Amino acid sequence: MKFCSQCGATLTIAIPQGDTRKRHVCNDCDTIHYVNPRVITGCLPIWQDRVLLCSRAIEPRLGYWTLPAGFLENGETIADGASRETAEEANARVENLQLYTVFSLPHISQVYMFYRAQLSDLNFSAGEESLQVALYEQQDIPWDELAFPVITQTLKHYFADRETDVYPVHYRDINIKRPNKSS
Amino acid sequence: MKFCSQCGATLTIAIPQGDTRKRHVCNDCDTIHYVNPRVITGCLPIWQDRVLLCSRAIEPRLGYWTLPAGFLENGETIADGASRETAEEANARVENLQLYTVFSLPHISQVYMFYRAQLSDLNFSAGEESLQVALYEQQDIPWDELAFPVITQTLKHYFADRETDVYPVHYRDINIKRPNKSS
Repeated sequence: MKFCSQCGATLTIAIPQGDTRKRHVCNDCDTIHYVNPRVITGCLPIWQDRVLLCSRAIEPRLGYWTLPAGFLENGETIADGASRETAEEANARVENLQLYTVFSLPHISQVYMFYRAQLSDLNFSAGEESLQVALYEQQDIPWDELAFPVITQTLKHYFADRETDVYPVHYRDINIKRPNKSS
Repeated sequence: MKFCSQCGATLTIAIPQGDTRKRHVCNDCDTIHYVNPRVITGCLPIWQDRVLLCSRAIEPRLGYWTLPAGFLENGETIADGASRETAEEANARVENLQLYTVFSLPHISQVYMFYRAQLSDLNFSAGEESLQVALYEQQDIPWDELAFPVITQTLKHYFADRETDVYPVHYRDINIKRPNKSS
């Protein structure tokens, strides 16, 4: 961020009065530009004893398997965003969404939220960001080819909870320490 | 948003190729500027049979009672943000945080998350954004003077769940229809 989105002037990085963190502050109009974590919302679509996975047509993790998910948009509920992403990535419709896993990923300033959801029908297919979409039974899950730790965790919780048919919301921090980068 | 934060040129509102929504797009360097919902994280601090509330020293809802909460910052976990806000607004320390309520507020593009938490001690006091901080028993909660629906809902869930000492995570959309505004 180099210029003020309000007036076009240059920015300074400084701690505003009454604040404790460095922010981008406009040199001309004094607007403070906050940058906050983003929410990724998605579904664990279920059909009988199988779950729906998508293989990624985009980087990062091209070709690896994931659950349909993406950035929550302004003006939509978290659940509506999860349904929308499932429609976009798997051309699939889901119903009876229940919040299931919540992950905090501070190293990339993201919050992930997945819903358990029932697939409404078997009319699914790969959306633009997917190479393939398929239903997997537990014993066939490609554990070594899953795209992200949040996907692995959500699937592990699901198959464990399915043993007792009780599905509490699971919350976990995933804090991957990375070397400091200037950015 | 009027100017590109990358290059300072003017912006156009347009639907980028492959997208379905209007975005702010730079007329010069073509950067797409996404705007996404923000996460507010907070605590329901508990001491024996009482809960901690803060009366707000700032607008909106100046003077009304709230739970300590604020915007999640980049680089912190949701739980760490909830602890930090409790320290800032009530000069209070909390422990054993358990995710408790999650609210989606699409009309203001916010996601609220509250943790049940044990107060570590009684050394609390009003922070800069609070007029007063006090412990309330259930029968003394100022229900008509609570700042926001998410506060009322979280407290109602807590006192109901306390009857059985079982505290599942509660998720709810709060979708207040407002007339369209140009903004």
